[in-house]
Formats: sequence, C-alpha cells, structure tokens
Amino acid sequence: MRVHGVARRSIRPLDEDHAVEIIDQTALPHAFRLLRLSSVGEVAEAIRTMQVRGAPLIGVAAAYGVALALRANPDDAMLAAALATLAATRPTAVNLRWALARQRALVAGLPEDQRADAAWREAAAIADEDVEQCRRIGEAGLDRLLAGRRGGGRLEILTHCNAGWLATVDHGTALAPVYAAFDAGIAVHVWVSETRPRNQGLLTAWELGAHGVPHTLIADNAAGWLLARGTIDAVIVGADRVAANGDVANKVGTWLKALAARAAGVPFLVAAPRSTIDFACPDGRGIPIEERSADELLVVRGFAAGGQCGEVRLTGGEVAVANPAFDVTPGGLISALITERGCCPATRPGLLELYPEETSG
Amino acid sequence: MRVHGVARRSIRPLDEDHAVEIIDQTALPHAFRLLRLSSVGEVAEAIRTMQVRGAPLIGVAAAYGVALALRANPDDAMLAAALATLAATRPTAVNLRWALARQRALVAGLPEDQRADAAWREAAAIADEDVEQCRRIGEAGLDRLLAGRRGGGRLEILTHCNAGWLATVDHGTALAPVYAAFDAGIAVHVWVSETRPRNQGLLTAWELGAHGVPHTLIADNAAGWLLARGTIDAVIVGADRVAANGDVANKVGTWLKALAARAAGVPFLVAAPRSTIDFACPDGRGIPIEERSADELLVVRGFAAGGQCGEVRLTGGEVAVANPAFDVTPGGLISALITERGCCPATRPGLLELYPEETSG
Repeated sequence: MRVHGVARRSIRPLDEDHAVEIIDQTALPHAFRLLRLSSVGEVAEAIRTMQVRGAPLIGVAAAYGVALALRANPDDAMLAAALATLAATRPTAVNLRWALARQRALVAGLPEDQRADAAWREAAAIADEDVEQCRRIGEAGLDRLLAGRRGGGRLEILTHCNAGWLATVDHGTALAPVYAAFDAGIAVHVWVSETRPRNQGLLTAWELGAHGVPHTLIADNAAGWLLARGTIDAVIVGADRVAANGDVANKVGTWLKALAARAAGVPFLVAAPRSTIDFACPDGRGIPIEERSADELLVVRGFAAGGQCGEVRLTGGEVAVANPAFDVTPGGLISALITERGCCPATRPGLLELYPEETSG
Repeated sequence: MRVHGVARRSIRPLDEDHAVEIIDQTALPHAFRLLRLSSVGEVAEAIRTMQVRGAPLIGVAAAYGVALALRANPDDAMLAAALATLAATRPTAVNLRWALARQRALVAGLPEDQRADAAWREAAAIADEDVEQCRRIGEAGLDRLLAGRRGGGRLEILTHCNAGWLATVDHGTALAPVYAAFDAGIAVHVWVSETRPRNQGLLTAWELGAHGVPHTLIADNAAGWLLARGTIDAVIVGADRVAANGDVANKVGTWLKALAARAAGVPFLVAAPRSTIDFACPDGRGIPIEERSADELLVVRGFAAGGQCGEVRLTGGEVAVANPAFDVTPGGLISALITERGCCPATRPGLLELYPEETSG
C-alpha cells in the first residue's frame, strides 16, 4: 500500500540509519508533511507535540530515539539521559515505557561500540513486530466482527480517536479488522468520532479515505444517539494502556462510548498488542492520566479561506480549561480484548490465558 | 443585571412594538451583536440559523414572529402562513409548537383589527412568564442542589450546551439554580462542556463569566472522566422536549452524560418549564430528532490572527457527515425534573402530580 507516493509506514529509517522519517500528524489532514528526526531531542519533541502519536507508534519512535542518542554518544550517561528524556514525554501510553525498558535491557550489557547498531536493529525489530502483531489483530478482530454480525447488511463500525496505521507502524489496532474486512470484500462502513480536543477523528477519516473505506464523521456527542437508535454493530477502539485486570486507558471519551454501547447492547471491543498491556499495573486506578495544554481545546486548526492552513482561537481573553487526554474504561464494560494472540475477556484470567508467561508476575 | 450596557434580556420589543431585538448568538463569544427583526421571515430565519436558540427563547421568538406577521397583515391566510413558516424552522424543541398553538388559540377568534396588538401582548406575556418560571426553577433547583450537597466545599456542577439566560429570556433553566446559588453567596463552580458541533459551551462560559461565576471549559469527551474521578456533585441540563413519561430530548451528548452520571452515582437533573413538557408525546420515541448541516461540524468559527472573527474548515474535499442535533435521555436516568412548580421524578405520575390539570389528557 502506498500513500502520497511512499510505502505505507508511519515511521521509517533514513540516512543509512542515522535518522528516521515520520509523517507530521499535527499537519494532517491539512497537509501531508514528512519530517526527518535525527536526534533523541527531536524524537522526544515529536512525541510530546503529537507529531507522532498512537501508543504503538510512540513505542517504536521512542525505541528509535534511544538508538539515535547512542549514535551520538554510546556511554551510560547518554543512555540514562535518553531514557529519562523519552520517558518524560507522555505518561499514559505504556508502550513508551515498554520500548524503553526493552532497549535498556538490550544495550546496558553491551560494549559501547556495539550499542548504537544493536539499538537500531532492536528498534527496527520492534517496528516489524508491531506490523505483524497489528496484522494478526486484524485477523482476530475480523473473526470477532463476523461472528457477531447481525443480518447480512453492511458492517457498521464506530471508532474513536485514531487507532489506524498512523497510530502504529502499519494496519493499526482498532482499524486493522476494518481494513481486513474491506480487503476481504466485506461491506463495511465506519462512523468516525471527531475526538475533541485534538480531532484525531480527522486522521481516521483521512486514513480510511486513502484506503477507500466508506466512512462518516460525527461529533463525539452523536456517538450515543447512533448507538441508541441501533445504527452500530460494534464499537472498536485502541488502547494506551491495558491494566492487568483488563481496565483500559484510552483517548478521553472512550468510557462514554463504552457506557453507551453497553446500554445499547452493542459489543465494545478494544484492540491492543502485547506492548500495550501493563501486567505490572493491577487496575485502572494505577494508570496516570495525562493533562494536556488548554490550547488543545481553544485553538482549532483547519483550512482557512483560500485553502491555506489556518487556525482560530475559540475564545478571547482568559478561560480556565481542564484537558485530561485519556480516561479509563473498566474491563467490565469491554466485550473482548483483541490482541495478536487472539481475543480474550477483559479480565486478569482472560489476559493470563493468552499470556501464560505472565502468570508468575 | 446589565450586559454590554443593556438590561439582561435575550429578546426585547423595539420600535413601539413593530420589531424585536435579539442578541446574535452565532456571533458570541466572538462579537456582541444586537439584531433587529421586523418580520416573521426574519424571525424564522433567526431561529433556523440559531441566532436565537434555546427551547424557551425559541418559543418566545416564535410568539413575537406571529405578532409581527399580523402587524403586516392580520388575515387568516397570513396567520396560517406565519404559523407554518415558524413551525418548520426546528422540529425538536416543543416550546416552539406550544407558543404557536397559544397564539393561534388567542387570535383565531378575534377580529382582524385586534389581532396584532393581542398577539404582541401575548408574546410579551409569554416572555414575562418565562422569566418568572425560570426564576422559580432557580429556587427549586437550588433547594435540590443544597439538599444533595456532599460536604461543605464548593458546589461542583457540570452542564452541557447552553441552558442559561441566553437560551431563555432571563435566568435560564439549567443555569438558573447556579445563578441562584451564586447570588446567595454559595461557592459554586461550573464545568462547561464544549458542546460540539455548535460549541454552545462557549455561550455558557460567556454568560457565566459576565455574571462572575467561576467555570472551567472541557471537551465533551472529558465529562465522563470528571464524573468517574468524583469531581462533580451534580449534572444539570435543560431540555428541548420532555415527553409525558419523563424521557427528555436535549442537545446531542446529553444521554452520554446521563449514563456517566448514573455510573458515577451523581445526580442528573433536568430543568425545564411547563412549555417544554409535551404531554401529547407519550415517550421519547415520539420526539423528532433534527438533523442539521454538515457544515456545523466542519466549519469552526473563532478569533483568527489579529483578533478578527474568522473560520477554518476542518477537512478539505468531501467528507460524509451525520449531525443529529439532539438525543433522548430515558427518564429512568434522570434523578429529577426541575420545573417552575418544583421538582418531580421523571415519570408520568411524577409529572402529573405537578401538573394535575393534564390528567385528563
């Protein structure tokens, strides 16, 4: 699959493995802009500002960030500084911490002259694993959708935020089963929740449009009414962290959709690879919820007159704003978790059945 | 109370009762602009475009619209045309239909030369009654809030859309108890839900700011998380139509907040005057839900660079949009209805206890 003339990967090595190229997700859908990141500082800033975003992609980007830091200086002090800088960018998505821990475990025991290359290969491996895991999530999720299909009509899917290939390396998590359905010739239509305040629904609409998948944009507020009136067959979202008991932190507004899905009797599915599952976190209360800038709510970017990218500020003067970026959906509201190993109930026993190697934890 | 140098009424007679003046609510908070409406066509257009909005205010504006039509021509054909034009503007808020029925009942039996003056006096009476009813809703709602107050701290109220004085003639419905609390010296703070796609939360923030009431703006998606983490003491919203069984149509997204309030064990209150209650509508399934233009979702207005009012379009090209303006919250999720006659359960018996004269219906 090619998008804007390049093979569809949200992150790729550049310059004989001395930089990575990303799609600037703060510019989409208003502009398709590729950015070259060649230092750990640039990677950290790209994560912080959400030029790269989506829990799995954040993990991959952070892994490359460690490698870039070690290219500059492979000593222990640089390693520690890089890990600290990257860990401080965003608190909720656990993939970030998982990728950093994996790089630390790999390189800490290596001689300095082998560290950069090893970390680079590891980052590339994490990226490739993510692609493969998301592909498997697509298969497992498609089976789940087809098993629960009502009637023979078009599959009507509601999603929130962006958990497509832009949020991973390819395929996506929540959108992987949608792409799998579409590519298998199954009629599917996606209701795309705008996802204020950052409007990641526009990323989802852009992705789906590029792939040819029919979709309809809605205000976040409208998701409830669509569910209430019986329009939706299934809700699928991604996750930023799955606690060991199946509680899920995901983009703020997810819990509201889970409540509405339950009230409407519609399956609520969460798709996430192993790297998003935090077996060290017993339940959702242990997940830190990031509070982001007021400007995310107050400044809206779009096409201004003449088609140029422009922005408007919703209010003049000072206004107090609260902007939690995530919420926690209790596992009890989740019909199934969809992972690269298949589906399971959003419970500790369910997760341990898929990941028995974690039982000792 | 004076706002921008004028006594605080959202609609007022002008030109020796040959026009009405309104605040253009599509310009707020970016500009405070008064508009003069001197024909039924102008009134209908102001309702359709939401320059006047809020179920009670729509009813009052429509009543004035009938009077303006009869000033131009008091015959039966004009009366019928005015009623039809105004009824076609917006389907969900029942106050509109209620006000039109009241004008029809009044003027149909009058000689033509008395119709315009009588309709004008009736519109003014409806406006004055609305002010008094909202004042009483404020008293009844305040008692309710104080009765359920947890601890001695600041009252933390969550509201959705705008159900303040801008949505009525004065005081508001959902905000009337908030103003009553503030004016009584009770510490109160309001969490203001942005209310996409039309961002009426900005109207609420503007109103509250003008009155000095502390408030914080949030994305609609964040309302759930605030409730889940125990920040909110009570949710209060207005209504566009209350069915005879207590089901409530209100701004889209209301049902999601009601579900979250129930899950969080927080009271969910609906404030509405008699004119919003539709005893002829047995339950929420009978309430028509207005579908509005895609541009409401896609075009965002605000302050552009330099402080000028500007707008941006969220996507280029074509994108399918669904934009239901309301949803229906089942009475079972509503802790109490607050009316000018006091509070009642959101049930048919509850409503009939407050309005026993409707028992025959």
